[in-house]
Amino acid sequence: MSSLEQRMDTLEARTRAAEDELAIIRLVASYGPLVDCGRDDLAPALFAADGVYDVSYGRMTGPDAFADLLRGPDHQGMLARGIAHVMGLPWVRVDGDAAVAINCTQLYLRDGDGFTVFRVAQNTWKLARTPDGGWAIRERINRLIGDDGEARDLLLNAI
Amino acid sequence: MSSLEQRMDTLEARTRAAEDELAIIRLVASYGPLVDCGRDDLAPALFAADGVYDVSYGRMTGPDAFADLLRGPDHQGMLARGIAHVMGLPWVRVDGDAAVAINCTQLYLRDGDGFTVFRVAQNTWKLARTPDGGWAIRERINRLIGDDGEARDLLLNAI
Amino acid sequence: MSSLEQRMDTLEARTRAAEDELAIIRLVASYGPLVDCGRDDLAPALFAADGVYDVSYGRMTGPDAFADLLRGPDHQGMLARGIAHVMGLPWVRVDGDAAVAINCTQLYLRDGDGFTVFRVAQNTWKLARTPDGGWAIRERINRLIGDDGEARDLLLNAI
Repeated sequence: MSSLEQRMDTLEARTRAAEDELAIIRLVASYGPLVDCGRDDLAPALFAADGVYDVSYGRMTGPDAFADLLRGPDHQGMLARGIAHVMGLPWVRVDGDAAVAINCTQLYLRDGDGFTVFRVAQNTWKLARTPDGGWAIRERINRLIGDDGEARDLLLNAI
Repeated sequence: MSSLEQRMDTLEARTRAAEDELAIIRLVASYGPLVDCGRDDLAPALFAADGVYDVSYGRMTGPDAFADLLRGPDHQGMLARGIAHVMGLPWVRVDGDAAVAINCTQLYLRDGDGFTVFRVAQNTWKLARTPDGGWAIRERINRLIGDDGEARDLLLNAI
Repeated sequence: MSSLEQRMDTLEARTRAAEDELAIIRLVASYGPLVDCGRDDLAPALFAADGVYDVSYGRMTGPDAFADLLRGPDHQGMLARGIAHVMGLPWVRVDGDAAVAINCTQLYLRDGDGFTVFRVAQNTWKLARTPDGGWAIRERINRLIGDDGEARDLLLNAI
């Protein structure tokens, strides 16, 4: 193999790594706007068919269960009031066809003339490469910061 | 054309796509610090000559109008008090020489010994590639989250 | 040199630039989770041997001094209570083997059933390429937003 071919192989792999990291950043970035405007078709599609969303108030499996959450009275009530899921900068590590992202999320609600931060949580996202070359969420765990140490343990386990 | 040339063509296009996404992330990231320290020369230069900033309290066209906003009593008062425009992670989609970014922004003000979140808003940014290969804002729309549904509609229209 | 070799050289340099920017984004993103779960080994390792952390309440030099801060009563008390260092989107500029990142950070604490934003600060990060090709913090300066103008001056000096 020529030296140029070797350099090309290496560069293709490096480009793939950068593309993967950007794709996962983009996926996490898309999550907030999709749930904040109630797109109960596109937001669930971020999850794999057996993808899990594990949050303080329950553990859901699959896009349909997540869509039900978005269509439920709690989320619809927050949508009507004015809501923002702020996705913190994700720390992404890709390993072949799997990846882990860690970030902090904040949930803001409109509160009269002001705004209330309703949830501050640490998150781990396990992702898998899909057959079409994209990425899907296999498991997102979200834990409120607090003196129960759950958010801290979540981070310790993922690092 | 040789196989190596074909691979090179493909790789150049992929690299360009990653560079575009990073450039737009960088542009959005620069917006906060530039307005928070009152750089009324560099912050307006992020906008195209006919670039629009459309916010709850008005719609401005062109860098000069944006510079006037930064030099005005409201922004100067907030600068004196202590201000932070927190730029949420942008969801970037590039399509040739145009791009759209969606993010949530928070505006914090110092408030005695503490801090007040003064604005929580959803944002859409339409960007265009400039002749020098950079990117400029063609239109940024910013809407407070709230029960008027404006922030939600903004997201729905941009997705 | 063949045209293909020239294109390869150019593309390798462009890929390196994108990798550098992503590596610095990743480093900043890792800082929050590492300190929020008390990894007093990995968080200090983000700093160069003579790396400085300069914050309102002191100026520390070297990873050991930063580790002492993490092991001290203030940080341990916040860990027990529930804490999140939210790393704002960094504005990264790379120049050869040096780089500067600018971002806003927020520190949230659990407060009964709610959450308090305890610090909102502007930050500058000076980074240097390490012998193994990674990046390390040479100096991070963190200043609370406020009417003393320190955060604003920090930004003005770094831009």
